[in-house]
Amino acid sequence: MIKVAVIGASGYTGLELIKMIINHPHFELSYVATSEGGVTLTELHPSLKGVIERDVYKADAKELAKNCELAFLALPHQTAMGFVKELMALDVKVVDLSADYRLKQETYEAHYCEHIDVENLDHAVYGLPEMYRDSIREARLVANPGCYPTAAILGLLPFVSYIDENYPIFIDAKSGVSGAGKKCTSSTHYIAINENIFAYKPFAHRHEPEIHEKLFLKSNKSFDINFVPHLIPATRGELIDAYMLITQEIDPIAVLKAYYKDEPFVRIFEGPVDIKSCAGTNFCDIYAQVKGNKLYVNSSIDNIVRGSSSQAIANANLMMGLAENAGIPNIAYVP
Amino acid sequence: MIKVAVIGASGYTGLELIKMIINHPHFELSYVATSEGGVTLTELHPSLKGVIERDVYKADAKELAKNCELAFLALPHQTAMGFVKELMALDVKVVDLSADYRLKQETYEAHYCEHIDVENLDHAVYGLPEMYRDSIREARLVANPGCYPTAAILGLLPFVSYIDENYPIFIDAKSGVSGAGKKCTSSTHYIAINENIFAYKPFAHRHEPEIHEKLFLKSNKSFDINFVPHLIPATRGELIDAYMLITQEIDPIAVLKAYYKDEPFVRIFEGPVDIKSCAGTNFCDIYAQVKGNKLYVNSSIDNIVRGSSSQAIANANLMMGLAENAGIPNIAYVP
Amino acid sequence: MIKVAVIGASGYTGLELIKMIINHPHFELSYVATSEGGVTLTELHPSLKGVIERDVYKADAKELAKNCELAFLALPHQTAMGFVKELMALDVKVVDLSADYRLKQETYEAHYCEHIDVENLDHAVYGLPEMYRDSIREARLVANPGCYPTAAILGLLPFVSYIDENYPIFIDAKSGVSGAGKKCTSSTHYIAINENIFAYKPFAHRHEPEIHEKLFLKSNKSFDINFVPHLIPATRGELIDAYMLITQEIDPIAVLKAYYKDEPFVRIFEGPVDIKSCAGTNFCDIYAQVKGNKLYVNSSIDNIVRGSSSQAIANANLMMGLAENAGIPNIAYVP
Amino acid sequence: MIKVAVIGASGYTGLELIKMIINHPHFELSYVATSEGGVTLTELHPSLKGVIERDVYKADAKELAKNCELAFLALPHQTAMGFVKELMALDVKVVDLSADYRLKQETYEAHYCEHIDVENLDHAVYGLPEMYRDSIREARLVANPGCYPTAAILGLLPFVSYIDENYPIFIDAKSGVSGAGKKCTSSTHYIAINENIFAYKPFAHRHEPEIHEKLFLKSNKSFDINFVPHLIPATRGELIDAYMLITQEIDPIAVLKAYYKDEPFVRIFEGPVDIKSCAGTNFCDIYAQVKGNKLYVNSSIDNIVRGSSSQAIANANLMMGLAENAGIPNIAYVP
Repeated sequence: MIKVAVIGASGYTGLELIKMIINHPHFELSYVATSEGGVTLTELHPSLKGVIERDVYKADAKELAKNCELAFLALPHQTAMGFVKELMALDVKVVDLSADYRLKQETYEAHYCEHIDVENLDHAVYGLPEMYRDSIREARLVANPGCYPTAAILGLLPFVSYIDENYPIFIDAKSGVSGAGKKCTSSTHYIAINENIFAYKPFAHRHEPEIHEKLFLKSNKSFDINFVPHLIPATRGELIDAYMLITQEIDPIAVLKAYYKDEPFVRIFEGPVDIKSCAGTNFCDIYAQVKGNKLYVNSSIDNIVRGSSSQAIANANLMMGLAENAGIPNIAYVP
Repeated sequence: MIKVAVIGASGYTGLELIKMIINHPHFELSYVATSEGGVTLTELHPSLKGVIERDVYKADAKELAKNCELAFLALPHQTAMGFVKELMALDVKVVDLSADYRLKQETYEAHYCEHIDVENLDHAVYGLPEMYRDSIREARLVANPGCYPTAAILGLLPFVSYIDENYPIFIDAKSGVSGAGKKCTSSTHYIAINENIFAYKPFAHRHEPEIHEKLFLKSNKSFDINFVPHLIPATRGELIDAYMLITQEIDPIAVLKAYYKDEPFVRIFEGPVDIKSCAGTNFCDIYAQVKGNKLYVNSSIDNIVRGSSSQAIANANLMMGLAENAGIPNIAYVP
Repeated sequence: MIKVAVIGASGYTGLELIKMIINHPHFELSYVATSEGGVTLTELHPSLKGVIERDVYKADAKELAKNCELAFLALPHQTAMGFVKELMALDVKVVDLSADYRLKQETYEAHYCEHIDVENLDHAVYGLPEMYRDSIREARLVANPGCYPTAAILGLLPFVSYIDENYPIFIDAKSGVSGAGKKCTSSTHYIAINENIFAYKPFAHRHEPEIHEKLFLKSNKSFDINFVPHLIPATRGELIDAYMLITQEIDPIAVLKAYYKDEPFVRIFEGPVDIKSCAGTNFCDIYAQVKGNKLYVNSSIDNIVRGSSSQAIANANLMMGLAENAGIPNIAYVP
Repeated sequence: MIKVAVIGASGYTGLELIKMIINHPHFELSYVATSEGGVTLTELHPSLKGVIERDVYKADAKELAKNCELAFLALPHQTAMGFVKELMALDVKVVDLSADYRLKQETYEAHYCEHIDVENLDHAVYGLPEMYRDSIREARLVANPGCYPTAAILGLLPFVSYIDENYPIFIDAKSGVSGAGKKCTSSTHYIAINENIFAYKPFAHRHEPEIHEKLFLKSNKSFDINFVPHLIPATRGELIDAYMLITQEIDPIAVLKAYYKDEPFVRIFEGPVDIKSCAGTNFCDIYAQVKGNKLYVNSSIDNIVRGSSSQAIANANLMMGLAENAGIPNIAYVP
């Protein structure tokens, strides 16, 4: 068994990580921490009662490094890079679920804050296995993608050579409330969400540059990404509807099937996808349709599983030389 | 008091009509019918117990015409035009909530079925007061707009002279389940909707040609409308997110405010709109934003109120020479 | 028009009061305040945009008293009694929505805090019109009942002479989340409520002594009330299921119909009631069933309408010599 | 690997069985059938795409018996017993999820229909492991308990010697909509359930005699069970609130902890339980509280997991000599 750590155990993605590690055939949960510490795991997450109990420590890189070969960091951006720097120095492999190592320095600093660990940023690998599987296998530090970029990029990637780069790509995204975090605010109050739907940060969400940069790195095309996310009255799940022009006739389903023919965690559907059929799993479900020169791409994931924690576990599997699908959930929360 | 009739009282829009007529200062509910008849109103709608009771008859145009000056038809398309034909001959004014008189004959027959009442189609007026208020005042037959076209057209209308007609307009719409009707099907089952969201009929919904035709009639521009509706886990409400290019710099909020400065039932917001703030009302709430040459238009209505029944009442008010806002709800179902 | 004030305009019940006053035929909203002030009404409640605009003041009894004949107080308990004392001295009639004047001093102090306005407590009338209509007409100060007591008492009252007082009454109640208030807490977060249900404060909720005391005052029987409330994933509505023994055979529907035969806002159903059919209205819907010597009473209200604000308006109507139903909503939020 | 069959694969409990068998360490899904057949598994359950594919046959006991040692029947009552009879004759072990073998003949026939397989009814074992673990190990036919009885009996069992049998037990239950089955009816329509809650079949549900009979068999006390179930707006989960009198002072938490000290799938909580913390798992969560001589018992399960399919798998494990917890989910659908 490989001993692993979770720092940032109190949030939703921390909990998802722990749920998967518990059932993982090769990982053992050896160290659990939050920025505060001083509680037990079932105090943080009562649903784990009878399943596992652990002391939750105040995060300490040196303590972690005594036993663990790999750490998952489920921390806010900026906080994360402090720990990453330390852990890299202590030779612990890291899957970082924050935004801190996802972007080139200039992109990062334009949208987040100053980067204090450029050295490790240089060798960090973007943890979307369908794009960078081989590099992830060699990586010491993997930057786990954002939830919206995961669904958007997986939907768009097969089409990059057909998309008209002279015209914008519009991405209309819908996310369950778990994406907004565990903190109760006026917009995560039950009354604010129930029987409601609304856009937030139209054209100004920080996942927009992430989608742009990754598609550029793959295609060398600088697509004009225009991203509008919405909150919907659901706990988990994320739906992407992307609209764009293409430069030649294609059979979009055939393109998708060819592109993902060997991918175990991408499913191509012949009609619109929903968020429930992949809830709780690592699947990304995709459908696409063409009308004249317009292309409609429709993809869905579980925002805190494929959009965060199960993708992190898959990355860790690759980094440790394990089968990519070890411990990865594929049975949906249906009904 | 003006005696009015509702045919098609069993569905959601029939109920909404009746709710508003009960509180209307000038309308009296004189005749209520369904295609079957033989029940009472509170058997159809137990929530009306203690408020109103009526026998519900099997729809009969001649019976209706004995007392009523105006009829609301909340019937499926094709069924509606049979009754309209009869009622016009009997000199009863009609607000038809179906699609039967919304479109030109060729558009209608391309997307629905053969039209059997072309004579009345010729003088029917499209019942969007913000577009055709003066004609509605003179009309004997008003075709009440579809819910999606109401929200989409009201959002797009102020911008028609700025939109680049050489590029598509993409409309990503989200509707509460009441839009799918009262019939329980595998896709209106609670389990299918709850914790879920999905597109249906992408680029193939019959409201797409309605949006196209009405914008063309107003602007003489043949916009390329591409419409993708979704079902969301909410009972009522409809959100429109429309994406397009513009040909000149504009301040979209200023455009909206100028265009609707005298309209009592359009509200311009300075940030994204939601569906709850207008639920239960005749308001259409609109926000818009520009990024470079991209325009994002975001509008919301209650799909069965402004998107159907309250708009029908407003049309009837205009047809009968009353104040447009008589009996029209403006207080939202909030919280 | 009678000028009225609302103090405590920021919460859900404050909003409901304002919604009803706007449409009230005899009340004019003359003064609106919160404990902070310094905002406008549509800043507090954006859904009121286009309907009404008002400055919201920092609550000041003397300012209020300059114009208003009656004030609605939608404030937390303890805060309320400070204002009531002042307003009584200034000869303003008050409907207080807090718990401060609902209970006898000893009951109040055992469950809340010290009472600082015993003088006015002495003449305050409990504002359940079905119990105290005549006294409310003469009252200067009405204590609006709690939401759970409203539904529970209305369900139980008709049966007090049949209930076996030697056995407990168990009341299992279910409330929409609006009952928990607008404040964001870990238990009002969307994720905590959605797809969930749980009891809170079993046998220890402060509405238990309120139900006990009011039934005692009416029946002179000291029933053993055992009350367990639950939060359900719904915005509004409250369902009561009460279980008890009876001492003689009765036809419970006949008892209910006889008891409430002249009551306009109590509806007797022949099968279990739901919360949706009375949502948004002042109705209390009741069903009851007997099996042997067991009596099951099932009642429902809208917790923030009949359970708070519309009942407050009805009380104000009675206090001002108006028709009890003036401005009282009876059309449900259905669908 | 032990080859097993699922008959009745189209419903929710059939799907849950299949989900668990897929991940089971010792079971292999060898035969899948419905009463119709002629489809594939992913046509029935698209969420299984990419996980498993099987032809779904028209149910045939002889075909099944060629390969399978054990069959799960997820069929309606009355249909089930026809298959059980055949399968017993063919020497296939059966876990029957219907009501057909849960009750004594006289109880069954009083509440369901004539029993046509009394011979097998005689040796069938009621599949609640906490009650009948040893008998289940020896059984050829296990009758899987109803969902409500599972939660109610597990909550009440520890207290049978303390409960006053001269006084009724009132059980107020709340169930997610999956309990109402996959069939679309007016009461499973999204609009009927959303923002709503209501009781159904008060004192007349067929799980009432099941609870009564099982408690009697264990305690020799004929408790007066009074059961009122409700539908709540949630997909899965079941909450039980039971109210009764006790004859002596007890510490209810201590009683629960002692009674279940060796049970891996019962968790005792020190405050009210919710349905989310055990959703998707085989746990039954229990809390209890005493006030004077009144006892309140509060338990929760996932209605289609512990209330049906995971309990069926646990029973099958016992029948096949495996560890009871093999393949049994214990990680909740949280958040």
